[in-house]
Amino acid sequence: MSSQHSYTNVDKRLVKSYFDSKIYIMTETAEIMKVNPDIQKERDAATIDMEELAVIIYGKEQLSKKRKLEDAVFNDPDYKCVPSAFLSREEEYEEGLRKSSLAVLKQSKLSDLIEDHKDIMAYNSVLASFGYPSFGLHQTMFIPTLERQCTSEQREKFLPLCYDYRIIGTYAQTELGHGTFLRGLETTAHYDPNTQEFILNSPTISSIKWWPGALGKTSTHAVVLAQLYTLGKCHGIHPFVVQLRSLDDHKPLRGITVGDIGPKMGFGPNDNGYLKLHKHRIPRTNMLMKYSQVSPDGTYTKPPRSTLTYGTMTFVRVLIVHGSAIALAKASTIAIRYSAVRRQSELRPGEPEPQILSYPTQQHKLFPLLATAYAFHFVQLAMMKIYTDVNDQINNSNFSRIQELHALSSGLKAFTSWVTNAGLEVCRMSCGGHGYSQASGFPRLYADFTPSCTYEGENTVLMLQSARYLVKCVRDARSGKTLPGTVSYLSEDVSAVHSGGSSGRDLSNLDFLISLYKQRASNQVHFASDKVDRGISAGMDLVGALNSASVHLVSAAKAHSHYFIAKTFVESLKLLKASSELQNVLHQLASVYVFEGIAQSSGDFIEDYILSGSEAKTIRQLAVDLLPLIRVNAVSLVDAFSFRDEVLQSVLGRYDGNVYENLFKWAQNSPLNKTDVHPSYHKYLGPLLKRNQSKL
Amino acid sequence: MSSQHSYTNVDKRLVKSYFDSKIYIMTETAEIMKVNPDIQKERDAATIDMEELAVIIYGKEQLSKKRKLEDAVFNDPDYKCVPSAFLSREEEYEEGLRKSSLAVLKQSKLSDLIEDHKDIMAYNSVLASFGYPSFGLHQTMFIPTLERQCTSEQREKFLPLCYDYRIIGTYAQTELGHGTFLRGLETTAHYDPNTQEFILNSPTISSIKWWPGALGKTSTHAVVLAQLYTLGKCHGIHPFVVQLRSLDDHKPLRGITVGDIGPKMGFGPNDNGYLKLHKHRIPRTNMLMKYSQVSPDGTYTKPPRSTLTYGTMTFVRVLIVHGSAIALAKASTIAIRYSAVRRQSELRPGEPEPQILSYPTQQHKLFPLLATAYAFHFVQLAMMKIYTDVNDQINNSNFSRIQELHALSSGLKAFTSWVTNAGLEVCRMSCGGHGYSQASGFPRLYADFTPSCTYEGENTVLMLQSARYLVKCVRDARSGKTLPGTVSYLSEDVSAVHSGGSSGRDLSNLDFLISLYKQRASNQVHFASDKVDRGISAGMDLVGALNSASVHLVSAAKAHSHYFIAKTFVESLKLLKASSELQNVLHQLASVYVFEGIAQSSGDFIEDYILSGSEAKTIRQLAVDLLPLIRVNAVSLVDAFSFRDEVLQSVLGRYDGNVYENLFKWAQNSPLNKTDVHPSYHKYLGPLLKRNQSKL
Repeated sequence: MSSQHSYTNVDKRLVKSYFDSKIYIMTETAEIMKVNPDIQKERDAATIDMEELAVIIYGKEQLSKKRKLEDAVFNDPDYKCVPSAFLSREEEYEEGLRKSSLAVLKQSKLSDLIEDHKDIMAYNSVLASFGYPSFGLHQTMFIPTLERQCTSEQREKFLPLCYDYRIIGTYAQTELGHGTFLRGLETTAHYDPNTQEFILNSPTISSIKWWPGALGKTSTHAVVLAQLYTLGKCHGIHPFVVQLRSLDDHKPLRGITVGDIGPKMGFGPNDNGYLKLHKHRIPRTNMLMKYSQVSPDGTYTKPPRSTLTYGTMTFVRVLIVHGSAIALAKASTIAIRYSAVRRQSELRPGEPEPQILSYPTQQHKLFPLLATAYAFHFVQLAMMKIYTDVNDQINNSNFSRIQELHALSSGLKAFTSWVTNAGLEVCRMSCGGHGYSQASGFPRLYADFTPSCTYEGENTVLMLQSARYLVKCVRDARSGKTLPGTVSYLSEDVSAVHSGGSSGRDLSNLDFLISLYKQRASNQVHFASDKVDRGISAGMDLVGALNSASVHLVSAAKAHSHYFIAKTFVESLKLLKASSELQNVLHQLASVYVFEGIAQSSGDFIEDYILSGSEAKTIRQLAVDLLPLIRVNAVSLVDAFSFRDEVLQSVLGRYDGNVYENLFKWAQNSPLNKTDVHPSYHKYLGPLLKRNQSKL
Repeated sequence: MSSQHSYTNVDKRLVKSYFDSKIYIMTETAEIMKVNPDIQKERDAATIDMEELAVIIYGKEQLSKKRKLEDAVFNDPDYKCVPSAFLSREEEYEEGLRKSSLAVLKQSKLSDLIEDHKDIMAYNSVLASFGYPSFGLHQTMFIPTLERQCTSEQREKFLPLCYDYRIIGTYAQTELGHGTFLRGLETTAHYDPNTQEFILNSPTISSIKWWPGALGKTSTHAVVLAQLYTLGKCHGIHPFVVQLRSLDDHKPLRGITVGDIGPKMGFGPNDNGYLKLHKHRIPRTNMLMKYSQVSPDGTYTKPPRSTLTYGTMTFVRVLIVHGSAIALAKASTIAIRYSAVRRQSELRPGEPEPQILSYPTQQHKLFPLLATAYAFHFVQLAMMKIYTDVNDQINNSNFSRIQELHALSSGLKAFTSWVTNAGLEVCRMSCGGHGYSQASGFPRLYADFTPSCTYEGENTVLMLQSARYLVKCVRDARSGKTLPGTVSYLSEDVSAVHSGGSSGRDLSNLDFLISLYKQRASNQVHFASDKVDRGISAGMDLVGALNSASVHLVSAAKAHSHYFIAKTFVESLKLLKASSELQNVLHQLASVYVFEGIAQSSGDFIEDYILSGSEAKTIRQLAVDLLPLIRVNAVSLVDAFSFRDEVLQSVLGRYDGNVYENLFKWAQNSPLNKTDVHPSYHKYLGPLLKRNQSKL
């Protein structure tokens, strides 16, 4: 437990000012510095070694690096600020800019900790806990796009400016009228051979660029996606580097209208922006020309493969799978710690109120989500490995797995973000009323996570893309082609699994259950595929048949993703080197994940006779029976995620469990509490109350 | 359509200033005043009469009253303000107070429209669209509690002050450490016979009152729930009227610490507050004594029936069922109107991009929720009728249906708020990125609705209460007792339904399908009940057996509520007087609701052999097949809910469908857009960008 020491290091000045304040004199004051005994009891009773598990999650070296970086950032008084919930949006924007600028300046002083690209990612993810960083898109979209799509001359020109933060860029793709459907974008870039310039225009209201992060007030430059016209012909969407603001005084350039799109559900500090282009001219050499070129005379050369230009998006989808795992891990941490501390109701008169973590209904809400957080962790590792492998192949001119990668990353991005999105709210609501307070950290966690379901490909659209690939695979298999790794099961005969009848089947055997997930996925894909075929037989074209089967296609892609996740979770555990008790407990988590997945979609399994009704009931009961076993280690299983209090920003999820006194302390920051009587009393409330005073 | 005329009455001054601004010169300006042709086309093609349906929903007289009240409020320039999304929380609080005070002062001038209690409710619900009203709890909790629990002397003393707004009160029940479990509240009221006063105290940190609306800065008084001690004995929770603030200067009284609990996920304008009592003395006569009394010498007299004191909560739960129907209707309106306007992707190259309302996947997201909004509307009517009937019986000293009412209202409150909560987010996400903007209205709609799942009884706790009653009914039935109306089916033999095998069953017959819902509910209740019995046979006490079966009990209560809702929807339509085409379309909606309910929980039905696997597949397909039929009237079905633009506060859900130009206009209000260059540039961004300028 020594590694957790710093978490309990409560700021003593704060505590002192808290006791000194007249408003708060209680009898239990002496207790406040201690860890809440209910949560301590959980940690003491755990059968696993939290630190062993933390090392498995992060890797020994990365965990140590993460902790050092967190110490460097969170122990630095320059970053201190009141909780963001108390700031107005303008203050949030300004505070985000302050911290982001500070982080750039401080990075050079951390050279012993930040040695490579991986370390920079780790540093940025520590900083991200302050809120959406002002230069996030500069780092994750603007620079990578330039790195991938610049010619060597362009690299030399642009990249040093970016790396030095002499310019700050964003990625302007989405328009008011077009998001997911890239080919529909309306912004135009007309080439003028006379001046060797492109003329950029927003020809309609719906063509105004809308949403790009940091576009409104921060960025000096943007990669703008526009329809390229040259010599009277349109060649589709291409990327252009556009300077937006003067590097002298930051004023928008002539022909550029930029601004903030207004408040959103979350992302308060970020100036998601709009951009309207009016006959704005840029040099020909500002078109990113690694793959396509326009020569000085206007001649267009098309890229060797169109898929190459969209690599960034696949990578970001892989990151969203990772982000889903993290968000669900955070939510589980807050909800499970609070559930260990919160006592409510009484079972029998006179008995102490139980910790709510002891109620079966609470366990049934939280433990499957805890298991899901672990499942997604192992899946994001597997997904990243596949991404890296395929990318290596592409670099060796082997393009055979691009479609498989695209389909898998699309399906997993959609599946994991949907499940996480719903799961975060289950965790919040499991904390009762206090979950609704900004003090819980949940409202911001949810508001900042939920756009993952929409950006980088809207989830339903991604599921359909994934499904179309699966349908194609079914056709390929029928025509004798060999299917690649993650879809090869579609050519297997899976009917054998259930032909043996139900007697003697071991329903607690995860390998056996995974084979049922496989069968369900295969059935659903073939069912949707047959539906498409029937549409074609009935006279539809392929597009029409796919469209009319789309509800079933989405189900098929979900079942495929679910199978991949369950399988990956179970197989990852087999490869782990861990103590037998930890293996045992992780196996319980995998079991709950696999059981609950069946219990919640039992219709899918029974409709196709993969399971009998009574078998489904048995599996549902197996899940319920596991809950009290998982409860023993629940707090340690979330402690192992190793989120510092500064990262969770949740009074309910505090490591020390001292929730109530800190809710009270937190509330004192509310701007409404600056005065005993709010100034508006004198304007409205007083006159109303006193208007009939003569009647008294 | 004439009744909708005022909706298109765009403020011409705004439009003018919009065209005059230099930032916005487009070619389509002449089009802006018109209704978007895509949404007009939907209205023109509808087969139902929107106005006929609106009258059915609201009743002719109420609809007319509603429209007049809305005209009175929304055409009154005194209420005008920038959209709340652009205000800081302090500004939101102040603006809420301003409008609420204004509304009180203006009410007397609307005496021709506001004649009875129903009209006041209608007036308040119009005002509620400005945000959570400052005096909401004064009206819905403080005054009703006084009306029910005051002696006649107390009524004379307190109520005139309340009605005249000479005092403003709230209802202080929840504490930091206790919400749903009332008996656990820790605030104490010790009676002192020497001075004939109660001494109120918050003895622990966890006993601080926490959450009551308008407690922090607004209220002068509160009904405080506290443990009553007299003559050395505790008599449990009782209500006391406590003055919090001076009526002269609004300062907190001695012994009273009040303040704002800080920002929440929603309810920005409301000062949900905390209250710490320190040896605060109130007169004996401030205990509400209609049911229990403490005499001057300290003698305690207990109430005739303990259930009588909790009537307010049941009523509020009935209101939440209504609130669920309204919230889902609003979300459906926004999402379906926007889906008619938004065009995206192309099916075949060269074809125009389809309205997203035409995609089967979009229909499959939205139409079942639209049907659910209608289902909940009819259910809230039925629930309110049962509430009124039972209340009439109680007033005639007939208490036989109190438990049934409590169980039904608990189950429906939980069921409808859960479904609505998830449904609002489905609607938001169905609008893609723009759903995430505060301009969509969704973030506020969700943030203000979601606490319905937690307050007035946490949903899981309510489901368990409902389930315990159902288990009791099973026992009563076995011992030969007759069960009351909504649960009488638990004593029926429902096995007959499926004994005939599956051939020849009409799966599109709603009465038949409702009998399957009944059977599912009955099976689930008996299954959970048997589980409890087995626990008892194994040596548990009843409490322990109920606790160990609680996951199954929640499922049973859900199935029971679901059956009641499906049945009520179908039966309500049979009693409607409507044109045959409208009957036809409402029948489609009921069908989608009933089909989808089975499709989404098919496991429940197949596990118990209520349906075969292939029948479940057939029903799922029936739901999908209905979607294009519903699409024809989808826009008119939401228009009939008759939400004015001022109520929806959604750029996406505008009646005129002119979304993009108004998103742009809306964004201009963003405080970040006050200057081209944000002031923080000079503090942070400029120095960062220029620090390496010498390198240029």
